[in-house]
Amino acid sequence: MNFLSDTTAPAHPAILKALGQANEGFAASYGNDEVCERVTERLREIFETDLEVLFTTSGTASNALALSALAQADSMILCHEEAHIQRDERGAPEFFTRGAKLLPLHGKHARLRLDGLHKALAEWPADFVHSTPPSVLSLSQLNEAGCTYAVNDVRALALAAHERGLFVHMDGARFANALVTLDVSPAEMSWKAGVDALCLGATKNGAMMAEAVILFPSVKDRLGELKARQKRAGHMLPKMRFVAAQFEGWLANDLWLELARKANANARRLSEGLSALEGASLAHPVEGNEVFVHLPEPVIARLREAGAGFYAWPDGSARFVASWCTTEDEVETLLAAARV
Amino acid sequence: MNFLSDTTAPAHPAILKALGQANEGFAASYGNDEVCERVTERLREIFETDLEVLFTTSGTASNALALSALAQADSMILCHEEAHIQRDERGAPEFFTRGAKLLPLHGKHARLRLDGLHKALAEWPADFVHSTPPSVLSLSQLNEAGCTYAVNDVRALALAAHERGLFVHMDGARFANALVTLDVSPAEMSWKAGVDALCLGATKNGAMMAEAVILFPSVKDRLGELKARQKRAGHMLPKMRFVAAQFEGWLANDLWLELARKANANARRLSEGLSALEGASLAHPVEGNEVFVHLPEPVIARLREAGAGFYAWPDGSARFVASWCTTEDEVETLLAAARV
Amino acid sequence: MNFLSDTTAPAHPAILKALGQANEGFAASYGNDEVCERVTERLREIFETDLEVLFTTSGTASNALALSALAQADSMILCHEEAHIQRDERGAPEFFTRGAKLLPLHGKHARLRLDGLHKALAEWPADFVHSTPPSVLSLSQLNEAGCTYAVNDVRALALAAHERGLFVHMDGARFANALVTLDVSPAEMSWKAGVDALCLGATKNGAMMAEAVILFPSVKDRLGELKARQKRAGHMLPKMRFVAAQFEGWLANDLWLELARKANANARRLSEGLSALEGASLAHPVEGNEVFVHLPEPVIARLREAGAGFYAWPDGSARFVASWCTTEDEVETLLAAARV
Amino acid sequence: MNFLSDTTAPAHPAILKALGQANEGFAASYGNDEVCERVTERLREIFETDLEVLFTTSGTASNALALSALAQADSMILCHEEAHIQRDERGAPEFFTRGAKLLPLHGKHARLRLDGLHKALAEWPADFVHSTPPSVLSLSQLNEAGCTYAVNDVRALALAAHERGLFVHMDGARFANALVTLDVSPAEMSWKAGVDALCLGATKNGAMMAEAVILFPSVKDRLGELKARQKRAGHMLPKMRFVAAQFEGWLANDLWLELARKANANARRLSEGLSALEGASLAHPVEGNEVFVHLPEPVIARLREAGAGFYAWPDGSARFVASWCTTEDEVETLLAAARV
Repeated sequence: MNFLSDTTAPAHPAILKALGQANEGFAASYGNDEVCERVTERLREIFETDLEVLFTTSGTASNALALSALAQADSMILCHEEAHIQRDERGAPEFFTRGAKLLPLHGKHARLRLDGLHKALAEWPADFVHSTPPSVLSLSQLNEAGCTYAVNDVRALALAAHERGLFVHMDGARFANALVTLDVSPAEMSWKAGVDALCLGATKNGAMMAEAVILFPSVKDRLGELKARQKRAGHMLPKMRFVAAQFEGWLANDLWLELARKANANARRLSEGLSALEGASLAHPVEGNEVFVHLPEPVIARLREAGAGFYAWPDGSARFVASWCTTEDEVETLLAAARV
Repeated sequence: MNFLSDTTAPAHPAILKALGQANEGFAASYGNDEVCERVTERLREIFETDLEVLFTTSGTASNALALSALAQADSMILCHEEAHIQRDERGAPEFFTRGAKLLPLHGKHARLRLDGLHKALAEWPADFVHSTPPSVLSLSQLNEAGCTYAVNDVRALALAAHERGLFVHMDGARFANALVTLDVSPAEMSWKAGVDALCLGATKNGAMMAEAVILFPSVKDRLGELKARQKRAGHMLPKMRFVAAQFEGWLANDLWLELARKANANARRLSEGLSALEGASLAHPVEGNEVFVHLPEPVIARLREAGAGFYAWPDGSARFVASWCTTEDEVETLLAAARV
Repeated sequence: MNFLSDTTAPAHPAILKALGQANEGFAASYGNDEVCERVTERLREIFETDLEVLFTTSGTASNALALSALAQADSMILCHEEAHIQRDERGAPEFFTRGAKLLPLHGKHARLRLDGLHKALAEWPADFVHSTPPSVLSLSQLNEAGCTYAVNDVRALALAAHERGLFVHMDGARFANALVTLDVSPAEMSWKAGVDALCLGATKNGAMMAEAVILFPSVKDRLGELKARQKRAGHMLPKMRFVAAQFEGWLANDLWLELARKANANARRLSEGLSALEGASLAHPVEGNEVFVHLPEPVIARLREAGAGFYAWPDGSARFVASWCTTEDEVETLLAAARV
Repeated sequence: MNFLSDTTAPAHPAILKALGQANEGFAASYGNDEVCERVTERLREIFETDLEVLFTTSGTASNALALSALAQADSMILCHEEAHIQRDERGAPEFFTRGAKLLPLHGKHARLRLDGLHKALAEWPADFVHSTPPSVLSLSQLNEAGCTYAVNDVRALALAAHERGLFVHMDGARFANALVTLDVSPAEMSWKAGVDALCLGATKNGAMMAEAVILFPSVKDRLGELKARQKRAGHMLPKMRFVAAQFEGWLANDLWLELARKANANARRLSEGLSALEGASLAHPVEGNEVFVHLPEPVIARLREAGAGFYAWPDGSARFVASWCTTEDEVETLLAAARV
């Protein structure tokens, strides 16, 4: 009953198989191999546009590299105060951008609000030499409260950002989980809604260490700069085919969507069971594979005693994450333990 | 006949097998898992001391992280002018240290000289507010000319560095290749000779993406700082067990030494054959798995025509690298093509 | 009728005279001269403790240097969301600290609140590798709304900060203005209340370009590091005696306090006159030399027409700053213009 | 007999007078005042082109700001191994550029050689993702050995740099001293010879703290970026008129050239006297206000005993600097002391 995080899960067998298939003979180094090329082509099909791709081995690396390629020197990144880039990356965005400022904005359920964005942009002008000019809007889909942005909301936020000359970055560590919930196409949820760069994560959804920075056409001319930053940050792996191969296995036969659907379904099951308990209430809507729920102390005690793994969240709720390998049985066992 | 680089080689089957074995059930994230713990213990046995280990996925990341944890703020790193950290890492040491200065020193066969080190230390005092104080000596073993440092030379250089308060960093991307050439113990070639931190590379010698920063007892109290830097640089992978697992497979049954011996033997075979050609001469002694050789133009032309892969080196020589999977047959085929 | 800023004022004649007196013969460079030594001694007397001093030529430089010497690597600086270091220094703190994060906190009248500080410290632990640890609390006295912190409030905030291992930085660009309002001693308003480092500004209060970073005993061992940072940032002037000389003139005969009293008195006069107008109301209490007042449109129009200089502030108020050379006559002229 | 450095000299009375004249009434802050505007116009006349100017208070700040505005991200600055930016600025260029690499080149009398430049450019390509691309050539005029570059040599070096897309920076801390030696126009010695940005120093030649970064037409579109960097580095002084005023006094009536001529003449007198001593020999040609001379031990002892101020240089020579206020009498006194 490990619901601690999707990062504690193993990799799906298809990933291991893909690694084996990529492990044949010599291949060009540093991302110039055929596997990287094939996966880039595949992502162009999936996202229905002429994008560029850079592979990394962590979501923090993807976010920080993408942000540093988008943010002009000494500028400001607007994000939610609960954003992973603000809270959980030990200042990686500041490091990679060499000192950009993150401006944390408020909003319920970890969602940025359009009025809050307008207010921030009004307060921080573009051309005042004494203050830091905004250059990037970053939003997370699935976000840090396990919630989605509706496509229309992404579009409205991106529009406001673009009108002020900002780029739009999407942290998609759990992009697949949001995608299957919203039931839209990858293109609709990203560049068609105004996203300039997407960090697409596979690690949490079945891979070993496989993340991709996707530059959509509006910013794909920055690929050269991004590669220089990737090299300088030690993220240009000599045998990059082994990262791309994980994507190949993950994308094949829509495995990525299948795993996300399964994880989401188990999260929903879990949330329904837990929120039905007397005295329990969801902290946020469950729109992906994460459940944040306020539970009575006795329930928490019973779960701990039964050996269930989950985190006490700073807001007082308990967080349960369903991974690609969580089973209905595990959910039922946990719910049974919770129920007395 | 691919002799371009050991980074173009696939991974040894034992690495893939180790990944499969590590892929069982849930495991703690971010390096707190049992595989990481086991490999750390194994390295303590191999190096015969109470060291600390941090895993990364590239040699550039290892070097830059290690250097940034050793170098005091705004200080200087002394290295050979041909050092990988100076030439081939796109300024990663400068980035991770936030602006340390690399002082390139001369020396034949990419070896630092003791007198050159003394001279540099005399010119750059420790306590002059106007100049950048030296804080780290970095040397590569195997070095960038494919040569080794004798253990006594490492010891003499490290002693001079320590007397001035510098730390000693060893870039061991091809540590195993040097080790089997010198036929000494890992401890003798590292901390016993004065090395404070070693970047031990497995990627070039059979792994997929597996490197380790080893902090010997003299600096192991910096592990906490190193982890913070690792996280901030996006190199603390969520599922770190899959990096450690590669080391587990690589170290088991002395596979790492076996693969290095094989690569070195094929490099020697190759160097003997090539240097015997009329008009050919070695640019550097062959003491590992790399051959730098000046070849007559017709030989080069014949090799290119035969489809041999190798690099024209900036100094006018041709570089051939034997990898763990290079075969005697390939060497013989290449030599035959070279011979007319 | 220039009430734009105290930075638009000329220097007091005593400053020019002090420059002339310092301009005799040769003197040691880079801050090692006798004027610097004398002023340091004088500041030790004034602050009644064994402090160390570093001179700079801008408040931004002082703040950024002080913060970078206090903040441990990759850490977080807590400050008010209206703080000069957050709003008006173009990211200098981020630059000098190489990527520290500023966490903007709320609070009426630009004052940090104790409960807000406690909450922030609870949310940002000291030892979690994934998040940025707080290391400095920065507060402004006089603050950005022209208000003071009571000494007890400074003490309470500093105590909370110290309990968590943070250092306390005070931006004293208008320190003298706060001092004469509170009618306490320099020591009481700084190190006795828990301030570790003070940026004491003379420029806005009569000097040409003269600021001092004062390290109180709790952090004075950082002087060496601070000097290295000063040099590296281009702020170690070759002929530093000419910065120190300005302080000498400014501190002599309590000129600094006299000028602050005069500016404050004129600000009070101005605020009383303006707030008495129908429809006018102060945005913040007037506790120094700045007046933030909401004025009816016709009043603003009349003032503009009369040629009065003042700024429309982002919060909708008008800001008037009285400088050391503002006269009662100017205030009366402005009030007359405002009154019909 | 203070020949330690031109930074130990006081300011010329005209500087103090200019400060007094600028100290009238209110003025716009942060460089937007009329004195700054006037001096900029004056420099346009003197340099016969439509340049832009930024004022600073130290040569290190000027160099570092200029270099950071010219150097593309993560790039390399080529300079002489004796360059002030390499030796004497505590890594300021690395700090302001956030980690650019300085490549130290050889050359007698601290002069860069054309063949050395060509070789370095050949070794460091512009478009190789693994290595740091060169972006700026920096040369000092007067250089660190007290020598000049002939205008033709500047032109040849600049041409080679421009052909590879580099910008050319000139460290002109002693620009006036070189100018009067070469007897050419300011334009001929700078932009007409290919210099893109000049750091023009007044501090060492009679001012208190007054330096200017001059952007010639080829790079003057970078003024906006340069100002942002100036602000971020704490070098945008609130009352900037007092820096510009020093230039106003310094440039008026060709005072700057007069002072440089006087200093050079005394250096020549000194060098002739010292080099005529038995066993003495000049280390470098004397082409400005600095004398580097190898002296017999007894001479040095006599000079020290007589209270003469000069530095023992790392190369074994003694350095004497004549400042604007050095007198013939002082030179004669020193020579007399040296002669027995």
